[in-house]
Amino acid sequence: MAHSDISPATGKKYSASVIGASGYSGAELVRLLLRHPSVRLEALYAFSQAGKRFSDLYPSISCDMELQRYEGESTSDICFLALPHGEALNIVPGLVRSGRTVIDLSGDFRLKNINEHETYYRQSKPADACMTYAMPELFRDEIARSRAVSNPGCYATSIILALAPLFLVPDNSFSVRTVSCTSVSGISGAGRTSKTELSFSEMSENMRAYKVCHHQHTPEIMQALGSSASEPSFDFTFTPVIGPFTRGIYSMLTVSLKGPVETNAIQELYRSFYAAAPFVRVRSSMTEVRHVAMTNFCDIHIAYGPENGRLVIVSAIDNLLKGAAGQAVQNMNIMLGMDETLGLL
Amino acid sequence: MAHSDISPATGKKYSASVIGASGYSGAELVRLLLRHPSVRLEALYAFSQAGKRFSDLYPSISCDMELQRYEGESTSDICFLALPHGEALNIVPGLVRSGRTVIDLSGDFRLKNINEHETYYRQSKPADACMTYAMPELFRDEIARSRAVSNPGCYATSIILALAPLFLVPDNSFSVRTVSCTSVSGISGAGRTSKTELSFSEMSENMRAYKVCHHQHTPEIMQALGSSASEPSFDFTFTPVIGPFTRGIYSMLTVSLKGPVETNAIQELYRSFYAAAPFVRVRSSMTEVRHVAMTNFCDIHIAYGPENGRLVIVSAIDNLLKGAAGQAVQNMNIMLGMDETLGLL
Amino acid sequence: MAHSDISPATGKKYSASVIGASGYSGAELVRLLLRHPSVRLEALYAFSQAGKRFSDLYPSISCDMELQRYEGESTSDICFLALPHGEALNIVPGLVRSGRTVIDLSGDFRLKNINEHETYYRQSKPADACMTYAMPELFRDEIARSRAVSNPGCYATSIILALAPLFLVPDNSFSVRTVSCTSVSGISGAGRTSKTELSFSEMSENMRAYKVCHHQHTPEIMQALGSSASEPSFDFTFTPVIGPFTRGIYSMLTVSLKGPVETNAIQELYRSFYAAAPFVRVRSSMTEVRHVAMTNFCDIHIAYGPENGRLVIVSAIDNLLKGAAGQAVQNMNIMLGMDETLGLL
Amino acid sequence: MAHSDISPATGKKYSASVIGASGYSGAELVRLLLRHPSVRLEALYAFSQAGKRFSDLYPSISCDMELQRYEGESTSDICFLALPHGEALNIVPGLVRSGRTVIDLSGDFRLKNINEHETYYRQSKPADACMTYAMPELFRDEIARSRAVSNPGCYATSIILALAPLFLVPDNSFSVRTVSCTSVSGISGAGRTSKTELSFSEMSENMRAYKVCHHQHTPEIMQALGSSASEPSFDFTFTPVIGPFTRGIYSMLTVSLKGPVETNAIQELYRSFYAAAPFVRVRSSMTEVRHVAMTNFCDIHIAYGPENGRLVIVSAIDNLLKGAAGQAVQNMNIMLGMDETLGLL
Repeated sequence: MAHSDISPATGKKYSASVIGASGYSGAELVRLLLRHPSVRLEALYAFSQAGKRFSDLYPSISCDMELQRYEGESTSDICFLALPHGEALNIVPGLVRSGRTVIDLSGDFRLKNINEHETYYRQSKPADACMTYAMPELFRDEIARSRAVSNPGCYATSIILALAPLFLVPDNSFSVRTVSCTSVSGISGAGRTSKTELSFSEMSENMRAYKVCHHQHTPEIMQALGSSASEPSFDFTFTPVIGPFTRGIYSMLTVSLKGPVETNAIQELYRSFYAAAPFVRVRSSMTEVRHVAMTNFCDIHIAYGPENGRLVIVSAIDNLLKGAAGQAVQNMNIMLGMDETLGLL
Repeated sequence: MAHSDISPATGKKYSASVIGASGYSGAELVRLLLRHPSVRLEALYAFSQAGKRFSDLYPSISCDMELQRYEGESTSDICFLALPHGEALNIVPGLVRSGRTVIDLSGDFRLKNINEHETYYRQSKPADACMTYAMPELFRDEIARSRAVSNPGCYATSIILALAPLFLVPDNSFSVRTVSCTSVSGISGAGRTSKTELSFSEMSENMRAYKVCHHQHTPEIMQALGSSASEPSFDFTFTPVIGPFTRGIYSMLTVSLKGPVETNAIQELYRSFYAAAPFVRVRSSMTEVRHVAMTNFCDIHIAYGPENGRLVIVSAIDNLLKGAAGQAVQNMNIMLGMDETLGLL
Repeated sequence: MAHSDISPATGKKYSASVIGASGYSGAELVRLLLRHPSVRLEALYAFSQAGKRFSDLYPSISCDMELQRYEGESTSDICFLALPHGEALNIVPGLVRSGRTVIDLSGDFRLKNINEHETYYRQSKPADACMTYAMPELFRDEIARSRAVSNPGCYATSIILALAPLFLVPDNSFSVRTVSCTSVSGISGAGRTSKTELSFSEMSENMRAYKVCHHQHTPEIMQALGSSASEPSFDFTFTPVIGPFTRGIYSMLTVSLKGPVETNAIQELYRSFYAAAPFVRVRSSMTEVRHVAMTNFCDIHIAYGPENGRLVIVSAIDNLLKGAAGQAVQNMNIMLGMDETLGLL
Repeated sequence: MAHSDISPATGKKYSASVIGASGYSGAELVRLLLRHPSVRLEALYAFSQAGKRFSDLYPSISCDMELQRYEGESTSDICFLALPHGEALNIVPGLVRSGRTVIDLSGDFRLKNINEHETYYRQSKPADACMTYAMPELFRDEIARSRAVSNPGCYATSIILALAPLFLVPDNSFSVRTVSCTSVSGISGAGRTSKTELSFSEMSENMRAYKVCHHQHTPEIMQALGSSASEPSFDFTFTPVIGPFTRGIYSMLTVSLKGPVETNAIQELYRSFYAAAPFVRVRSSMTEVRHVAMTNFCDIHIAYGPENGRLVIVSAIDNLLKGAAGQAVQNMNIMLGMDETLGLL
């Protein structure tokens, strides 16, 4: 079906499949696609949950489709993959060959540097296993030209968007020396799992840092900012934490610049960079997780230290939406030539 | 009553009062003092809650004493003050003159620098309104010699203990260039209040940074580390945050050293510095809030970046115990010449 | 504007105002109306928050309208009132006289019996201050004929829907002797308030019953079921409770019948009664709060005791949607002759 | 060791073991026994966690003992068993034969009626597998004479204590016709497990009833009240629920009497019945979970319906203390002839 055939006016719709629909990100994809005006949900695939009805797992989402076992082929115009890391590596190539539009939510195809992938994911992958890094605010044109993209990680989304103007605006007057980032994730970020350490009794009234300086989103962040985890152009320290809430990522970044902090110029840099980005809000007041929960927004607030030449940037997203399913639908809209916000506001 | 008269053997006990017993820190003081073997709780004072029974406010603590209005005098051997900032300034001098042993939990008497006090608390205070800064792990001897002390702040406790070995060990080989600290506090840190923004409906599933780079514990931290907020000897950036839990402070510090990070030497420095501190645990595995909840422990874990010359230090305390009432009782034990851990394990 | 002018085809839309848009129910109305295909949000009114922008209070909802002070008049086709009890009494009559379609979410106009209103609300009201009780599943035709309706209470919605088939199906074979109901409400049910007892620190890890046997929804429930709180035709005991979550009501009803419990017949009675109700789901497996959170569904599950002639009915709603704003939009759809589910799925 | 040798004066202590020390109830036993003045903790046993240090699992409890694999024998004076249902059946007989004082926290030895045990636990047991039902407020003398007892279940404790005066006071003037009970348990009641449905992401902002009318505490409650699940003398309906908190049980009972409800007489009956019970508090104001959290108290509040001849009784306990480990230590105190409250206040 040609893109031009699809529009609210013609009433035609793209068919879509979700491979890995039983997890939290997959379920959010189902919720979003059901209400998308230009999409018809065609098939849901799962593995351990195959055979169940989707609404048995997620009664709050009105979808009675059966979760099918994925047998290696799809007839849908668009295929979303929301699988554990490593599994999409085997599935995506076949979908691409058969002409599907593919959006993969895993980390499998994000990193260009194979060594970094192997270091951080502890898995090898083929040298060409890399697809367009689909962060619309940074790489919109490239996404629009792609037929298969890699959706960014949740931490990475909140951190890259908080830093991008400083790194990616040519000839901007600020030069970053160090970034220290603490990001607190809601527990849904760990997926729909049965680990004792993620049980309510263990995580209520608790916080826990993990993978300090070793989280797999580190090379992804460096790559997106034009640097590299192996040969960094600035000092980056990343402390991921899980906190006692279900949805959201709250990132707090201390940024040290080589020159002085010019407050107005930085505000202007950010507002200008995101002027055409419908889902990034540069806010003059402090942002909070609940400001973005259940939305596709990334909110950014910039605070300034009194005299020490540093700034503190706070960003907030819903990890399952802007950090996963929402950004994936945003990417689909761009890839199909539709309004970027369709089905997301 | 002479100190020598008091001991489990003689059965004699010190009398104690809590001024400001209706708030969360005051209530924890009551709970701890009730079970302390060398203390007899003599009087509880409150203001807006005066006239009520303590157990009506806190039924989980078996104490039927009435909350009295404080009239400016106390006959107790030991007086704890757990009042909103600014109120102890008027009360402490009279207690000291009448020979009471005084432990103040507010910020009123912590800062030596009057200008810093006025900048951060937006209140003036007399030039001599400063008492021994009662952090036992750092200033035990001075506390033991004092009759009136200022109990540290909750954020400050978790942060100072996480940094002290690097700053206070003479001739240690590490020189700190920058510290970036994100501390997440449980909501009880805001006291027993009725603010809409602290209601369950606003804070469940939420996080919110506040007073970034302007929190009043900043000068307290710098002062304790031998530096100064006005003339800092290293870059310190502090991002306080409230998170969706009641008790605890979880601090994550990125520390940049001028020289290389020698892992073993830093571990050794910390273990050696806290070898005689019964309530500080330097842990080789990651610490969590629940590891210290309902205890007087401060747990410290040191993580290391792969190659960028930085370390990440994580510390956890119960904000109402090691961050307030527990540390106050620890100080009382030291001031009265008793075992530092009495009534706290 | 005539109803016939309004349709997705013509593109015309009804204008709508929300009076009391700063509270949680009002905010949910804004969220729902913004995405409703046949409504144009015209004005938002508030009292203490007048002058602020809506999005300053609720950044997760993209609406930059200013909250205006209500001056007694509206030009909107439809007016929703989401005010504290007692305030709508003075506002609704003027709106009705000026020809507005009115949906009031307060308790002011629900009870026909003035004495019961005065007993349970501790306020008097005029004898004619009663409007159509707008529970669509019970009184759809009457709602469709009304120009001003009273939206049901949140507890009442979850309880009435759980009991209605037993009471309102003519000549059904079951006769109820007693109902004992425990309903646990999320804390948002208390509104956007600043009470100490609703703070996070007090309500996390807590539960509290209140107004046992005296809650103002009791007469509303009895009236809707064709009985009366003053002269009850069956024994009804209601224990409302608040629990440590933000959204939702979970009602557990023990029902004692005069005759035997015929399992299949009761299931059939319920399924048949709600066959045409798009938002009531009679479920064969246990329902949970998260099954209905962020939806307009009321889920009902019927369990049976082994031998004691009783049944246990569990119902769940989102208190702010089916228990308030969602049901109000459902009622608007019915009053305006549109599909009952428009804007709600 | 003879009981008379043990006292704070002689300094001698009973040795104690906890078999099943890695679960939540076992851990609470460890915490309580460590601070008990007449007990020396001798050994901790576990199964899947054997080989680990206790403090690695529970860092908030200062106990470095190793969890040993239980090999069928113990040399301790007192043995506590906190094992999954079914496992104590094989262990207790040997301990009893070797003269140990035994307190079993499982359901294995609670029910006298073998058929009821098999129906509700889906396990068979020997006809003599029944020990003293160790609820101190009801059976103190029998416990004092026993060398092996069965500690009550958590739900059962909160419900039996809420009803006992009506059933067990000879010749009291009240006759119960029906009891409808809804009990909400904190999630720790399910133990330290790794089930998806108990993960934070599934249970935050959620409630779920389960085993309605089929929970295994039903026959235990009936037996303790002098009735029987198989041949009940009154109608009892039990709806257990899990709620989004870690610790606590909140039970709400609607009681229908055959005669009129005489408010003062019922209050008097309860206060008199529990006059000598140090851990039951009959409260005139509403009780809440946080009033009893981290204590061994059971709080009971009695509310009255306006005119319908019913009363509502609300009771609250900490499920891990009065509902498990606390009550077990209380029983130990009684069995060893010590003050019932030793180590528990």
